[in-house]
Amino acid sequence: MPQVPSEKALVPFVSVENMMRLVHQVGIERMLLELTDAIEADFRRWEIFDKTPRIASHSRDGVIELMPTSDGETYGFKYVNGHPKNSNDGLQTVTALGLLAEVSSGYPVLLTEMTLLTALRTAATSAMAARHLAPGNAKTMAMIGNGAQAEFQALAMKAVVGIEAVRLYDIDPRATAKTARNLAGSGLAVTSCRSAQDATEGAEIVTTCTADKQFATILTDNMVGAGIHINAIGGDCPGKTELHRDILLRADTFVEYPPQTRVEGEIQQMAPDYPVTELWRVVRGEAAGRRDARQITLFDSVGFAIEDFSALRYVRERLKGTDFYQDIDIIADPDDPRDLFGMLQRAKA
Amino acid sequence: MPQVPSEKALVPFVSVENMMRLVHQVGIERMLLELTDAIEADFRRWEIFDKTPRIASHSRDGVIELMPTSDGETYGFKYVNGHPKNSNDGLQTVTALGLLAEVSSGYPVLLTEMTLLTALRTAATSAMAARHLAPGNAKTMAMIGNGAQAEFQALAMKAVVGIEAVRLYDIDPRATAKTARNLAGSGLAVTSCRSAQDATEGAEIVTTCTADKQFATILTDNMVGAGIHINAIGGDCPGKTELHRDILLRADTFVEYPPQTRVEGEIQQMAPDYPVTELWRVVRGEAAGRRDARQITLFDSVGFAIEDFSALRYVRERLKGTDFYQDIDIIADPDDPRDLFGMLQRAKA
Repeated sequence: MPQVPSEKALVPFVSVENMMRLVHQVGIERMLLELTDAIEADFRRWEIFDKTPRIASHSRDGVIELMPTSDGETYGFKYVNGHPKNSNDGLQTVTALGLLAEVSSGYPVLLTEMTLLTALRTAATSAMAARHLAPGNAKTMAMIGNGAQAEFQALAMKAVVGIEAVRLYDIDPRATAKTARNLAGSGLAVTSCRSAQDATEGAEIVTTCTADKQFATILTDNMVGAGIHINAIGGDCPGKTELHRDILLRADTFVEYPPQTRVEGEIQQMAPDYPVTELWRVVRGEAAGRRDARQITLFDSVGFAIEDFSALRYVRERLKGTDFYQDIDIIADPDDPRDLFGMLQRAKA
Repeated sequence: MPQVPSEKALVPFVSVENMMRLVHQVGIERMLLELTDAIEADFRRWEIFDKTPRIASHSRDGVIELMPTSDGETYGFKYVNGHPKNSNDGLQTVTALGLLAEVSSGYPVLLTEMTLLTALRTAATSAMAARHLAPGNAKTMAMIGNGAQAEFQALAMKAVVGIEAVRLYDIDPRATAKTARNLAGSGLAVTSCRSAQDATEGAEIVTTCTADKQFATILTDNMVGAGIHINAIGGDCPGKTELHRDILLRADTFVEYPPQTRVEGEIQQMAPDYPVTELWRVVRGEAAGRRDARQITLFDSVGFAIEDFSALRYVRERLKGTDFYQDIDIIADPDDPRDLFGMLQRAKA
């Protein structure tokens, strides 16, 4: 016979459908802007977080990762996979779910889809980095790799940095056509390009977001002119990079969490002591971001747990006063906490 | 407007209520026996698993842990907390949830409550160890610590090892009364004792399962006679132990995964090279378990990810043909996998 679970046993769960409702209620560009601010606020208090490189389980076709962190009051983690070949099978390359819990009790307080939320937070993180590293008054972004994340990247750069034009390129023209179609009516001038080189023409920001699990050369040295900001988000796994190392040698490299980026990022191509600047120091004004108009800046982004934590906390706040969640009965919570067995026995009756 | 999620987007979710239904459909003793066999089967193929010590986030009042593993085909992890003071606030000391995913795609295939399932798998693991380490024909178990796990431990030792009597002790007599009440009618002869020493009288198996996050001495050397099997499951955290070190010196110690147990188990009191035997080697017949009737065996159990993996796979199998789950819409799965944004846009319409 069903028992009525106690309030403590119920955890708000945000389905994909409800996440989409939340995004539309807030408005996607506003949400990207608010997420950028939420992530930046957490980067400012970087030192208080419990940090660890994500825990990766690698297999032939991909990787499954757990990304935990805590600010001492709230704990969060994300489950996420990366399987480049999934799209051949009609599946998402990246899927994710996330959880927040109260540090003082260990009780979960939020469970949510994070496939959409990861696309949003990755775009917001890129925009936050660009806010500090891109040339002032950047108006054009090249978007190389037009997969699931492309539109989110473009809209975040529009909402946060003020870009007005995006130049698309993908080895698969259908991906570019899809992205161009989705961005029609967004207010961005969209140009579909025939090559990566073509896409970079006139762009102050170059975003690379491709998915092959291999050492690739999406950008070569000749495509990168003085003053460019490179937002490299596709190289995020051991053995998976996008940039020729000559580009790294000409650029100043900014990273999220060095112990993770040195294994997963573009800089896995470089020596273990290759100089990098931690982005949180730039955000806090403790390290220089862009210094001059000719500098090439590179955000070697791999995605870090604190960004997911910021996004989870943002969603939790934004859910208040909405019905964009279901309460799910995932925590066994007997009246007498020591009487777990009694609860089980009584359920039989 | 709600969209109908595709089949791939839906993940079977087992609530607490449904887990209780499953336990009662199978029968608790039968389920404990089947779980013991499932765990033992995975211990036999120990080497193929991707193993890592659990990832712990410690705070003043407790710990939150992630416990991942994979056998190359299936990936699993558990989220679990341990907050000894929770029971003062009417909350569970340990709550948990778990997930299984397909390694080839990274897509989740099961999400389940694991508070109940952890109590069941911990009891099954204890019983599996006792099957190999307890004296032949053991009939009596002392159960020191009568919290949420006590009844599960007693029933697993009954179902798997054949114990007929259990002697209960807890510093809180109400906990003992609760356990005695719940075990009435189980077929076990239950004796409530006034001290830990009293509880150990005549017991061939001594289980310690207390929850204080501190170095404690639940068992002292004089309570442990020749031939006893000690099943120490409460000491499972740095700074949290139950046994006096003199007991360890007289016993042969068996562990799950040494890199984790040396940090979390009773043997954290000993030198880093303190000799231990890995239980999987005993299960496989590659190392001796109990050698003689006077030997003191100690299972220094802390709980390892493979046990959760076995339990999750068991539940997944057992769910087949039942309706003890709900499908939840946790994976964003657009028709065109690269068109995540288009899915979001269409949801607005």
